Amino acid sequence: MNDRIHNFNAGPAALPLPVLEEIKDSFLNYKKSGMSITEVSHRSKWFDDVINDAVERTQRLLKLGPDYKVLFLQGGASMQFCMIPLNFLSANSSADYINTGTWSTKAIAEAKIQNKPIQIVASSEDKNFCYIPKDISFNKDAAFVHLTSNNTIKGTQFETLPDTNGVPMIIDMSSDIMSRPLDMENIGMIYAGAQKNIGPSGVCMVIVQQNLLDRIPDNIPTMLSYNTFADKNSMYNTPPCFGIYTIELVLKWVEETIGGLEKMGALNQEKGKLLYNFMDDSGFYRATTDIGSRSLMNVTFRLPDENLEAQFISDAIRSGFGGLKGHRSVGGCRASIYNATGMDAVTDLISFMKDFEKKNG
Amino acid sequence: MNDRIHNFNAGPAALPLPVLEEIKDSFLNYKKSGMSITEVSHRSKWFDDVINDAVERTQRLLKLGPDYKVLFLQGGASMQFCMIPLNFLSANSSADYINTGTWSTKAIAEAKIQNKPIQIVASSEDKNFCYIPKDISFNKDAAFVHLTSNNTIKGTQFETLPDTNGVPMIIDMSSDIMSRPLDMENIGMIYAGAQKNIGPSGVCMVIVQQNLLDRIPDNIPTMLSYNTFADKNSMYNTPPCFGIYTIELVLKWVEETIGGLEKMGALNQEKGKLLYNFMDDSGFYRATTDIGSRSLMNVTFRLPDENLEAQFISDAIRSGFGGLKGHRSVGGCRASIYNATGMDAVTDLISFMKDFEKKNG
Repeated sequence: MNDRIHNFNAGPAALPLPVLEEIKDSFLNYKKSGMSITEVSHRSKWFDDVINDAVERTQRLLKLGPDYKVLFLQGGASMQFCMIPLNFLSANSSADYINTGTWSTKAIAEAKIQNKPIQIVASSEDKNFCYIPKDISFNKDAAFVHLTSNNTIKGTQFETLPDTNGVPMIIDMSSDIMSRPLDMENIGMIYAGAQKNIGPSGVCMVIVQQNLLDRIPDNIPTMLSYNTFADKNSMYNTPPCFGIYTIELVLKWVEETIGGLEKMGALNQEKGKLLYNFMDDSGFYRATTDIGSRSLMNVTFRLPDENLEAQFISDAIRSGFGGLKGHRSVGGCRASIYNATGMDAVTDLISFMKDFEKKNG
Repeated sequence: MNDRIHNFNAGPAALPLPVLEEIKDSFLNYKKSGMSITEVSHRSKWFDDVINDAVERTQRLLKLGPDYKVLFLQGGASMQFCMIPLNFLSANSSADYINTGTWSTKAIAEAKIQNKPIQIVASSEDKNFCYIPKDISFNKDAAFVHLTSNNTIKGTQFETLPDTNGVPMIIDMSSDIMSRPLDMENIGMIYAGAQKNIGPSGVCMVIVQQNLLDRIPDNIPTMLSYNTFADKNSMYNTPPCFGIYTIELVLKWVEETIGGLEKMGALNQEKGKLLYNFMDDSGFYRATTDIGSRSLMNVTFRLPDENLEAQFISDAIRSGFGGLKGHRSVGGCRASIYNATGMDAVTDLISFMKDFEKKNG
């Protein structure tokens, strides 16, 4: 096992061990090229195969229609916060934003920096973002509805996507992409920093519908237009090759080893249920989010006091459980249980938590 | 040797073998973290040490004063073409651009897309960019002078940087950063896509002086402001961790194995001289660039006709020499001999070229 730990990091996060092993094994000589994957040209047959396979696996896993383009950008989701209003909002169109936490708030701020007209149609800020707003009224002439499907920091997740009455949704899925099947109806665009469920940091996957691409004005900077990436299969300039290669292998693992998104989703359901049920039955650990809004990816929780939390986190590290500290902006504890964090990690964590409670409860 | 080839790719390009071996060896468990370097948090001690070491090695290698910040961005040099005018040009300031090829031309186009006032003070377009303009008159009130120090596609390089009379230079050094010592006098900013001399694709190193950072307006999108990166040690959001880690190892190799930029520069001089001298003495191979403007990084050349060139490239591949095809926009042949392509690769290439001439000349 190479003394690997159970990795509950929020991102960069755990990657499937078989993926890491494949990268390692071929690292000095990729597919008999005589070069590392980091050394082959992005204009070569080797890399063409990599990027095309990553695109095709995405199409199959999400059952995308031919009107969706799969792109690989850089700059993380944060760059998308800027590109979305720049590409899809003009002076005479407005967009609806749902505010469910830190990342939604940042997305809203970037639209405002550009003086783009947007409206916050729902927010859970009143209760420190511990729930997902329901029964939202959308503006029927909005250019799009922006939302964050899973909130890494606050630990909430849309169980089902809202009904926007046909307005296309643009969804930040950084922390739950490929974690469950997805109904693409009404989805205009998905974007996701790779470093949680599908790869290393440094790549942002964008899945965007052609009718949104058709709206983009011509006069924006080349690298800030989605059309630049759509027109050149993400290779207008040198793409982040190693990241795309890793994504390819992760998607192959989801498709071939796990067996697709239905199975991935069922597994994630089971992992989340086990951990939440354990905490709900405990008087010691307390989940911070409302039932019906709980994230299956980022399980946020508290212990009776901050001293115990600090001890819990440090005892956990000594016992081989990493990344359990909550985000520095909210404190507490968080177990991120993305696709690559297996059932064994969750059951081992629960055993550890039981032990810790016995000693300290 | 794992059947590795001599890699003359223009970018992504060869990396030092000891760097690749170190990445491979620690790939499943980085410094006893129990995680891959691709899985550790960017907020961890492990990654802090990586990014700080990469910054400090850059400072030492280039002998940077304390007024320079070393940053790691994404989007390649192409994103810089957009960010530079956005950050450093207002409606009432103008900049001087030198046009020495494809990349300069793109940098100029991006300033024009933003309607920023710029002036092209010199160009070698009249002779298909086969030389570097000399004796340029700069506007003394220009906000900056932009130039491309090495032209990957056309095979030219500034042997020495121009005297701008105190106007700060902003230099695209994507293809010659860290290839020789550098006098930072009059340099306001350097930027470089990593994938040629210092790492894999997906990271752009930016070295920028504080007095340029002080000029940046507040109202530009967060991810497009250099101050966002300068204020947070390049970690406002998740950085491209694997790329920065590889850069750290490459810079360690330059500093400790090669012995610094003086030695690196001498080695590159020697490699270039050997290859150019061989071609100048040959009636068969012909360098395409003017003496005094020749790149020590990208040696562009032609054979007597295009059929011979095609045969040369395919014979070379069969003999273990990769990446010798010229850029698709110019044709011909090109041997990129960056830092990681050693003297042995150059002498072996010359032997192969002699053989090929003997058989086909």
